[in-house]
Amino acid sequence: MYARRAERLAPTLAASVPAGAIGFDSGHAFPGVLPDLTREAEIALTRYRAETLQYAPRAGLPDLRAWMAGYTHPGLSAEHILVTNGAKHALELVCRLLLDEGDTVAVTAPTYFSAIPIIKSFGATFIEIPQDDQGLDVSMLSKTPKFIYNVPDFHNPTGITMSIERRQALIDYAKRHSIVIVEDSPYREVRFEGTLPPSLKALGGDGVIQLGTFSKLMAPGLRIGWAAATPSMIARMAQLKTDAGSCPLTQRMILEFLAADRLPAHIQRVQGTYGSNRDRMVAAVTREMPQATFARPKGGYYVWLALPEGTDGDAVAACAAANGVAIIAGSKFFANPGPKHHVRLAFSHATHEEIDEGVRRVAEAFRAAQQ
Amino acid sequence: MYARRAERLAPTLAASVPAGAIGFDSGHAFPGVLPDLTREAEIALTRYRAETLQYAPRAGLPDLRAWMAGYTHPGLSAEHILVTNGAKHALELVCRLLLDEGDTVAVTAPTYFSAIPIIKSFGATFIEIPQDDQGLDVSMLSKTPKFIYNVPDFHNPTGITMSIERRQALIDYAKRHSIVIVEDSPYREVRFEGTLPPSLKALGGDGVIQLGTFSKLMAPGLRIGWAAATPSMIARMAQLKTDAGSCPLTQRMILEFLAADRLPAHIQRVQGTYGSNRDRMVAAVTREMPQATFARPKGGYYVWLALPEGTDGDAVAACAAANGVAIIAGSKFFANPGPKHHVRLAFSHATHEEIDEGVRRVAEAFRAAQQ
Repeated sequence: MYARRAERLAPTLAASVPAGAIGFDSGHAFPGVLPDLTREAEIALTRYRAETLQYAPRAGLPDLRAWMAGYTHPGLSAEHILVTNGAKHALELVCRLLLDEGDTVAVTAPTYFSAIPIIKSFGATFIEIPQDDQGLDVSMLSKTPKFIYNVPDFHNPTGITMSIERRQALIDYAKRHSIVIVEDSPYREVRFEGTLPPSLKALGGDGVIQLGTFSKLMAPGLRIGWAAATPSMIARMAQLKTDAGSCPLTQRMILEFLAADRLPAHIQRVQGTYGSNRDRMVAAVTREMPQATFARPKGGYYVWLALPEGTDGDAVAACAAANGVAIIAGSKFFANPGPKHHVRLAFSHATHEEIDEGVRRVAEAFRAAQQ
Repeated sequence: MYARRAERLAPTLAASVPAGAIGFDSGHAFPGVLPDLTREAEIALTRYRAETLQYAPRAGLPDLRAWMAGYTHPGLSAEHILVTNGAKHALELVCRLLLDEGDTVAVTAPTYFSAIPIIKSFGATFIEIPQDDQGLDVSMLSKTPKFIYNVPDFHNPTGITMSIERRQALIDYAKRHSIVIVEDSPYREVRFEGTLPPSLKALGGDGVIQLGTFSKLMAPGLRIGWAAATPSMIARMAQLKTDAGSCPLTQRMILEFLAADRLPAHIQRVQGTYGSNRDRMVAAVTREMPQATFARPKGGYYVWLALPEGTDGDAVAACAAANGVAIIAGSKFFANPGPKHHVRLAFSHATHEEIDEGVRRVAEAFRAAQQ
């Protein structure tokens, strides 16, 4: 008999920042960039009341599915899209669709820590693949996992973006071995400089399932994300949804926001705000923690610090918490037990003053943990 | 090796009514009773913007959990409550918590059809228990399932309410054999006459997990329900949620609706509207289908018709669909293959004129299927 499902599920981190602490831990949105959606809500709750307060179509509102399809890739249409309660929910449905007990899943080392317990809860084990400054090192793939999970744009936690050559090599490998690629891309628009290569979905077509979300595009509280896959996969995943369709009210509010063409200006604000937060944190870390090495991220929410070998990142995170700063120990980002000398700092949620003060306290925690 | 999870999942019915058809199928809300929530949304999106557009606490907003606790039973507090994306999502989390592959679950015959594929998807099999006009026949329980699932108030699909004696007997049996009871009670406030016995949760305490929802209390589109259980079960189920917390915007809108004390008047409107729809459908069925027998429901959304033995309810439903009326064949409500001579008609969604015309067409379909 297999272990009870619930007991296989590793505990996840608390999502909320401890009261009063400076929050460098979760990828919360900066409060100042949360948009005013009162007009969108009013239209949704009056003109569309019979839709927004009723049960929704299980796969999502058709107009929103069509928009998500076009956003993901011009060749896609509404039936390639399933609306979900955020990207993590989309990943869960992909796991339900694809995984059998005992399967393997390939992930980068490190990888997005919230994906680990979700995949693990389906009884799968992990193959970890190293990455360098070009992203996932495709030459290190040698086995045939059920799927390869990756965050190719402004990778979480490292901030690395996969090069076009690596993307193409990954797709070639996956095609040759009939492996599904699961591309998680929440940060694609949170870009401060440069350009991005085409998405894996654009390059790989039906062999790639892309996960998207409005959490980083508009606001996490809307709880609307999606999966882009083949129509038959989408139809199957829709049957696996037990929420009777994601919230039609927030779906319609998003459609009204898009119809008013507010997204481009909002994305500019997002890029400006988080870019400026990134600059502030990079400067603070350079000043306060000269022993730490890191790649300056060109997008996303995070700085991934490598501390000197032998440093206990778990102890640094614990000391920082005692100092009133929430950060995440790097060890949480390895699917299998891995190196411990990293920490991840999110610059998305804090003010500039909090970034200065918080990094100062993390540096103190680092020195304390050294002793 | 067990079968792939996705392949064990029986297909569920489409949630939407076919275009143009009279909808007696799903338990959709009557459009005329959907409340005006524009004021609630405006407050939620201005005063509470930093909460409602941000990630939410995984277990739900503390104030809403406290309200749900008090509503469920005066002895409960917030830590007994997990906010979910509707009651079906709560049932899924209960299954994740409790079920191992190969377990058995006891349900009434018939039972709520959407619960069947959810429970089945965890690899459980069913023990069906008969019911009479007093509800689930506890004397027929002889095995020890992992849990007993029931809808004791205005049962779906039969409309039967469990008597106090049966409730007590069920709790005694479950306690004696250490079986969890899962009480699904969406219709408790949709009451047209008489009073209800105390809930199983009130009678059975920690031995009962109750599932609740605002879908029937306010509006399905809010996608907010809950599970009431012991604090340790709630903490475990919160970890199993992959949605990063249910939508904080609709949670806050509900809190504002409650704070303005609008719920009592709204429940009165709900009872008046659905009570009048019930009367209209009972009259229509009595007039058009004298061959059908049924118990006049004192609450809920449904009339459960027993057609003469030998009638093929699947054929009646297919003929009715061809006649432009969506109903659900009774066979869908049996977890194991069962009798086929029933159909379920929902009176919640249709207008009085549609009820008259729809029942006339169902009667035609019944006569056609007889031939």
